[in-house]
Amino acid sequence: MADRAVPPQGATVSSEESAADGRRTFLKQGLALAAGVAAGGTAQQAAAQNLAAQPWEHVYGAAFTGYGQPSRFEESVQRHIGRAYGDLAPGTGSALVPIESLEGIITPSSLHNTRSHSGTPDIDPKQHQLLLHGLVARPLMFSMESLLNYPMTTRTVFLECAGNSLRALTPQPMQVPAGAMHGNIACSEWTGIPLRLLLEEAGLQPAAKWLLAEGADSSHMSRSIPVEKALDDAMIALYQNGERLRPEQGYPVRLLLPGWEGNMNVKWLRRIKATVGPTYTKDETSKYTDLLPDGRALQFTFEMGVKSVITRPSSTMRLPRTGAYEISGIAWTGAGRIRRVEVSTDGGATWADAALTGQERAKCLVRFRLPWEWTGKEALLQSRATDEKGSVQPSRAAWKAQFSPIIIYHNNSIVTWAVGADGSVKHVYA
Amino acid sequence: MADRAVPPQGATVSSEESAADGRRTFLKQGLALAAGVAAGGTAQQAAAQNLAAQPWEHVYGAAFTGYGQPSRFEESVQRHIGRAYGDLAPGTGSALVPIESLEGIITPSSLHNTRSHSGTPDIDPKQHQLLLHGLVARPLMFSMESLLNYPMTTRTVFLECAGNSLRALTPQPMQVPAGAMHGNIACSEWTGIPLRLLLEEAGLQPAAKWLLAEGADSSHMSRSIPVEKALDDAMIALYQNGERLRPEQGYPVRLLLPGWEGNMNVKWLRRIKATVGPTYTKDETSKYTDLLPDGRALQFTFEMGVKSVITRPSSTMRLPRTGAYEISGIAWTGAGRIRRVEVSTDGGATWADAALTGQERAKCLVRFRLPWEWTGKEALLQSRATDEKGSVQPSRAAWKAQFSPIIIYHNNSIVTWAVGADGSVKHVYA
Repeated sequence: MADRAVPPQGATVSSEESAADGRRTFLKQGLALAAGVAAGGTAQQAAAQNLAAQPWEHVYGAAFTGYGQPSRFEESVQRHIGRAYGDLAPGTGSALVPIESLEGIITPSSLHNTRSHSGTPDIDPKQHQLLLHGLVARPLMFSMESLLNYPMTTRTVFLECAGNSLRALTPQPMQVPAGAMHGNIACSEWTGIPLRLLLEEAGLQPAAKWLLAEGADSSHMSRSIPVEKALDDAMIALYQNGERLRPEQGYPVRLLLPGWEGNMNVKWLRRIKATVGPTYTKDETSKYTDLLPDGRALQFTFEMGVKSVITRPSSTMRLPRTGAYEISGIAWTGAGRIRRVEVSTDGGATWADAALTGQERAKCLVRFRLPWEWTGKEALLQSRATDEKGSVQPSRAAWKAQFSPIIIYHNNSIVTWAVGADGSVKHVYA
Repeated sequence: MADRAVPPQGATVSSEESAADGRRTFLKQGLALAAGVAAGGTAQQAAAQNLAAQPWEHVYGAAFTGYGQPSRFEESVQRHIGRAYGDLAPGTGSALVPIESLEGIITPSSLHNTRSHSGTPDIDPKQHQLLLHGLVARPLMFSMESLLNYPMTTRTVFLECAGNSLRALTPQPMQVPAGAMHGNIACSEWTGIPLRLLLEEAGLQPAAKWLLAEGADSSHMSRSIPVEKALDDAMIALYQNGERLRPEQGYPVRLLLPGWEGNMNVKWLRRIKATVGPTYTKDETSKYTDLLPDGRALQFTFEMGVKSVITRPSSTMRLPRTGAYEISGIAWTGAGRIRRVEVSTDGGATWADAALTGQERAKCLVRFRLPWEWTGKEALLQSRATDEKGSVQPSRAAWKAQFSPIIIYHNNSIVTWAVGADGSVKHVYA
């Protein structure tokens, strides 16, 4: 990671300081992460000469491309793919975001998390249609071309799979990158049509209290949605991060239900049917229920809980030196806005407020950051998010106590990374 | 574009209404863009049957990918490439954003505009270094690994080439897509280090009033930057839309000067030298000056003016039917925030306020939208942006009067699209 040639000097930021104070300390004392070069006239010239011209400065560069790609030196940044049935079904399961390699708030569409039940269909938008029927005055059939002429809105929203962090429920903590456990979460700028508008055009009947949303994948993935949500902030999404949806995120059209379980945001949307009650589809009865200790199960637990995870440093990384670091991570809540993220470097004994970016947006990822000086001692890094409704991210023990031991959904408990005296960063249960 | 099978009915939105009123009218009367299907029990079942299962609903879909790509049905959405010297220098010139195909605010990194003077270098981040020297107490050399451990900030900022819209200065209006003329503009979420922090660590001397910023491309593209800007909101950018910078946008590190001419945001940044005055590099003397009518030239016109363009509908498109449309476009200003965007459908005789998305962010693209009913008559579509400093986007005539006829930079004048009685949309000068 950091330049090892230069020993750290004098950075004294501690997690007890506020983020702003910490940054000022950085400014005053210097991070000492860069190599100093001797000052003064001749030495300065020498410094410039030290900046040896590299091979690429001597050759004419690559031609323009119509659709660009990342540097070949970043090829290792890929989604973490988990196939539920191995090679038998190479598109069934989840592909998780390498959150440990990303920064900021927006997830590149190429790295957005993907949960699919029967692979990614190859849909021709000229053939695909969306039917809106059931308890409506005027059933409507939408071509994609007609949808593209409706009034649109744009909103940046996270999408988290209900099963995100299930890999942090194994008996022993997995030693894999953060994204391979907690990366079933992404955040994009979505543009599309308020679902409310289409429902009003179709003339939703008062008896309609639920909607069935059905995908055009070969599993016809289907979920029941309360009408209240559809009339609130649901979107028929057509664009993702400026361009048309990616196939893996539902091209040519998907349902977007801000803050709710990822699977309900039905991809490759082909049909919405207004109904009196829930349809109890295979996808909401065989899956996506939360087993309680007494054997009963919670059903229709739509909203995703308040949650955060430190992405840098995180499991499988190694701190190459003592000294100044920035702890960075993501936080989100299905309930609205993130109000606060606290960071602990001592396993929860003490907490410091992290600086937030993006907290003005509801149901959107927030980036949190806190300066930290690693003195070379063992440390336990944790983050704890609080949302505007006052909900606080629970400890692992408190969260687990609510459910059966075989629960796999809605794990929003606090994550712990243990920094060893050797700089190794490991996943631990604490 | 829209579904031609269904005649429009009763949408009566006019540009005189406010955007909110217009949307309510849409809601009340229906857009009538969708195909109605007969209501009632049996007919509803028929409707569901009409939603014929498509081939992709019968086959298992594609496997997960580590790094996703757009649908093959969107392959035509590519940058508009303009090579300044044709095949002699396939990476010199500009690649423009297909703004006519995009929505929202974020530009996908793969479609971000690119201005390069000697192609895109293939930089190994392990070899690349950034030297900070000149009038500083402690010259510093930064490896990329050391930079990645500095405190970071995240901000969404537009980047516009000073020469954007020069193709709208030809004697006769070009009939090309909007992006081929006005697409040298993009907007990304950038994450990196405040330049101020590095300058303070190096100990900037009081005599230093300017910085020289130099790229590692084989042209060593270089610009002089006032220190005030560097200490204000300049960023050493390392991430773009969540992932590391793309090579075409400066991988592994670029300078970001929010709101200022694109070329000053030096890509592939290798050197910053603090100086007393401007360096007068080849790039700021042979180019990027604005010739006046009297033969003198403006130099160092850093800030990009207040500007907007309608992207949909726009030149080379065709309206397939009369009836309801949404006029959509982008607006921006180097001065800070966009306060207002007005739209005219009669060549500027009357104006209506468009709805804005993103106007809370300074130096960021704003999306504007306005409902419009096309009655089948000729129309002249224009947009006019006003920023928080009170600057108003000028008419083409007023803008041209300021400069020599051979001016090619800083064209922020109002753009006009003419809708013909046949639905054709053409670029006109008005």
